[in-house]
Amino acid sequence: MNKTLDLETLASLCKRRGFIFQSSELYGGINGFWDYGPLGCELKRNIKDAWWKAVVRTREDVVGLEASIIMHPAIWKASGHADGFADPMVDCKDCRKRFRADQLCEEQGVELIKTEATFALPDGVQCPACGSKNLTPPRSFNLMFKTFVGPVEDETNVAWLRPETAQAIFAQFSNIVATARQKVPFGVAQMGKSFRNEINPRNYTFRSREFEQMELEFFIRPDEAVELICGHVTQLDDKPDLMGPPQASWGWNVWLHYWIEQRLTWYRAIGLPEADLEQYWQVGDELAHYARACVDIEYAFPFGVQELEGIAARADFDLTQHQTHSGKHMDIFDETLKQAAAKLDDPAREAFTRKVVTDWTRQGKSEEDARAFVAKLFDGKYIPHVIEPSAGTDRLALALLSNAYDEETFTDHKGKTDTRTVMRFHPSIAPIKLGVFPLVKNKPELYGKARDIFAQLQRRWNCFWDESGAIGRRYRRMDEAGTPWCVTVDFQTLDDDTVTLRERDNMQQVRLSLSDLVDKLDAEIG
Amino acid sequence: MNKTLDLETLASLCKRRGFIFQSSELYGGINGFWDYGPLGCELKRNIKDAWWKAVVRTREDVVGLEASIIMHPAIWKASGHADGFADPMVDCKDCRKRFRADQLCEEQGVELIKTEATFALPDGVQCPACGSKNLTPPRSFNLMFKTFVGPVEDETNVAWLRPETAQAIFAQFSNIVATARQKVPFGVAQMGKSFRNEINPRNYTFRSREFEQMELEFFIRPDEAVELICGHVTQLDDKPDLMGPPQASWGWNVWLHYWIEQRLTWYRAIGLPEADLEQYWQVGDELAHYARACVDIEYAFPFGVQELEGIAARADFDLTQHQTHSGKHMDIFDETLKQAAAKLDDPAREAFTRKVVTDWTRQGKSEEDARAFVAKLFDGKYIPHVIEPSAGTDRLALALLSNAYDEETFTDHKGKTDTRTVMRFHPSIAPIKLGVFPLVKNKPELYGKARDIFAQLQRRWNCFWDESGAIGRRYRRMDEAGTPWCVTVDFQTLDDDTVTLRERDNMQQVRLSLSDLVDKLDAEIG
Repeated sequence: MNKTLDLETLASLCKRRGFIFQSSELYGGINGFWDYGPLGCELKRNIKDAWWKAVVRTREDVVGLEASIIMHPAIWKASGHADGFADPMVDCKDCRKRFRADQLCEEQGVELIKTEATFALPDGVQCPACGSKNLTPPRSFNLMFKTFVGPVEDETNVAWLRPETAQAIFAQFSNIVATARQKVPFGVAQMGKSFRNEINPRNYTFRSREFEQMELEFFIRPDEAVELICGHVTQLDDKPDLMGPPQASWGWNVWLHYWIEQRLTWYRAIGLPEADLEQYWQVGDELAHYARACVDIEYAFPFGVQELEGIAARADFDLTQHQTHSGKHMDIFDETLKQAAAKLDDPAREAFTRKVVTDWTRQGKSEEDARAFVAKLFDGKYIPHVIEPSAGTDRLALALLSNAYDEETFTDHKGKTDTRTVMRFHPSIAPIKLGVFPLVKNKPELYGKARDIFAQLQRRWNCFWDESGAIGRRYRRMDEAGTPWCVTVDFQTLDDDTVTLRERDNMQQVRLSLSDLVDKLDAEIG
Repeated sequence: MNKTLDLETLASLCKRRGFIFQSSELYGGINGFWDYGPLGCELKRNIKDAWWKAVVRTREDVVGLEASIIMHPAIWKASGHADGFADPMVDCKDCRKRFRADQLCEEQGVELIKTEATFALPDGVQCPACGSKNLTPPRSFNLMFKTFVGPVEDETNVAWLRPETAQAIFAQFSNIVATARQKVPFGVAQMGKSFRNEINPRNYTFRSREFEQMELEFFIRPDEAVELICGHVTQLDDKPDLMGPPQASWGWNVWLHYWIEQRLTWYRAIGLPEADLEQYWQVGDELAHYARACVDIEYAFPFGVQELEGIAARADFDLTQHQTHSGKHMDIFDETLKQAAAKLDDPAREAFTRKVVTDWTRQGKSEEDARAFVAKLFDGKYIPHVIEPSAGTDRLALALLSNAYDEETFTDHKGKTDTRTVMRFHPSIAPIKLGVFPLVKNKPELYGKARDIFAQLQRRWNCFWDESGAIGRRYRRMDEAGTPWCVTVDFQTLDDDTVTLRERDNMQQVRLSLSDLVDKLDAEIG
């Protein structure tokens, strides 16, 4: 329904109804930053609550974390962000303006030269501001926002705003293992703000400099540990039931597909149509060197099909990096594994070791590393591997807003053609669940009854009281806010405790009792 | 119960049970930053949900906002933070270290010299690091964290991490008025991270560099507008009912006391004892020049009585500042006021004007300003005044943790003396509401029944499944987590659907039916 929607139309509705405002609009705005107004912040709260409920609260194998945005800079050394998280930039030596090298070349119809370690500009590239060709070579510009902690602004006090929430989970892994009474496989989830100093923020809220993430690091046994424990490793070819409870024998690729299914199921449950969700599997160079696989879950936005969430199998890369940089062990002890290994006799151990050595050397790793890894496995120890479903909250809000937007032409009850704008949010994420209207406001008994009903429903759901204007206009206002239902309290309510329920999507009205209304809301909002 | 609690004991429990970890502990930590572990982040979620529910969701006169942390730097010019939000610092010219001037003087037994506009060091003050007397004069050091937006690190691209969430509410005031269908009096609430580059973070999480706020700006009519509309202004002496619905005739001081009562009621409702809550009314110099009154709600922390929340009557200072700095009008139009003014005849208008002029000139304001203000009032226009209840989420979490902590010596059922650590959280903010235990785990029927009960309760409340160890040990683990109830499923459950409910606080056990259990949780958690 949003195929012909353009971003300006959506942004205009979002501003008019208080979903999204430009940050600091009063002072001309600030590029790449956005504020959520009264309806927008309820929408975001609902998204985050739904994610937390699905990923943390209703699962016994996931716990939460809420870490600080500013962390020790060593974390970004270990993660690679301090050195690698950069775009190549050139400066004009004459007018002192700065540009992204790849975009400069693209605009001028030439190709940026990529060498082994760096970039170079082809001859003839000009400064787009002053026309000078006196440009510096491309130099990498880190996308992390820099600040200084403490009273002195020097290099020893530099800190960064986190560019992702994930690293805190790895940095606190040992503390969580020590306190949370969880055993691998288990996950740690975090929601919160992240910051990237994008050179070119664009597509409304899609690529912002400040944004919110919902990330899960789900720690699993290495396949070799699974094999020791279960005698085999379940692969996709074995057609495991990905919607049922996870099994101890699953290998990493089954876990990856399990999480893809979990996440797609969730997106559908909050109202994104299956047809607008796509999977893009990263290939070759796109894939980080340590990643075994990464799939982007994409949504058909008005500006094109773009990433909502990335789900990556990152092996033991992150924990190993932190082990190396901190000098502290990230191994966990797995009693089940140790018991399984203890049952093997020497020939079985040797056969298993040979198999792992063959596998690892085929992947280009050393025999020495393979043997050390197996020796640890026999002691019940390993660094867990990880599957990382990493979603963008603001991108999802934008997808839900885009998906919900509809302009509908219909024939009203007098036979007149009319048009309405309606935000068709799923009830679970709609900012307001219910409009409550007294039919008239000058009849105290009816008005009081309506207030009582409002007070009762408001205790459980976010309701909106509206007593001004014709009922039809009140419906229209709720349509634009995306409120799935409106109830009108009229004279009959005083007699029999029934109300008129009007459905947002089909504009049908039905009469039902208050208790049936509560049951209906219970069932549909969840 | 926490009178003898010291912070180390509390911090040790918090780390051991996963409430709070030092940020970046793996790399030696970072001073002034904290992470919330699995139990801590649920506690904070419950605090924020409870605040949002009390302040926004169940009120028709408050809407929410979620603004960006990085905003246009002009906002901090207008608010005064860019210039005034600073501590005086001195640098040692020899060893290049930096110190807070007031602390330096205090340590060396001398007094920092305060002049009209600045500070000076008395003679003889030495660098505590190298002993040199070659120190710079005190220079103000802004407490806002500085960063650069965009690819160039120069003064034109400086931005700040917000030191408070409140300013975004003022900056977006016009957008909210235009979209939210609210009329004064109404409020705008925001929760979120703020940052202050404290020279000396201290008292565990109490004074941190990164912290979370829950702020409400509640906009009210100036008293003069109230008088025009109602013919009088209700004062405290009139003994208004502060717990009932707000009245149109309330003056600012009644509104201030209304919000103090609202907030105190809320603190008591989430379990802080009345006896540990104090009000401190700022006097003289403590009060910002524009503030009419400010009360700190304080809590008796283990390290002393300290502020949880400030509630300030800020008049129209903030909106006026933004009007001046942005050049855009912050007046709102009040139809009721205009109609009331229209009913006045000329002598009544003149009398009203004279009264306002007398009041204002007595307060040191100009007659010209008073006349301009009244002229606008007669047109139904004014800049709203504001009452600001501003609470610290992390401070409240610390207060709730301190208050909950108890070490109890008791006699067990065998007559043996035993000790337990128990976190006596109010059920509404307890991270886990209910522990669910199968009596034994090797009886499939009983185990399956317990799993069914767990699954049913987990849908509504955060429950914890525990099947390992003696029941007594499982209770003890839940006591330390602050879980108010545990249910044990035993053989009798299979016969009659009753379970054993154990209360955390008195360790009593009662037998009740599953449906009575659900009703009890419903009533006590809310």
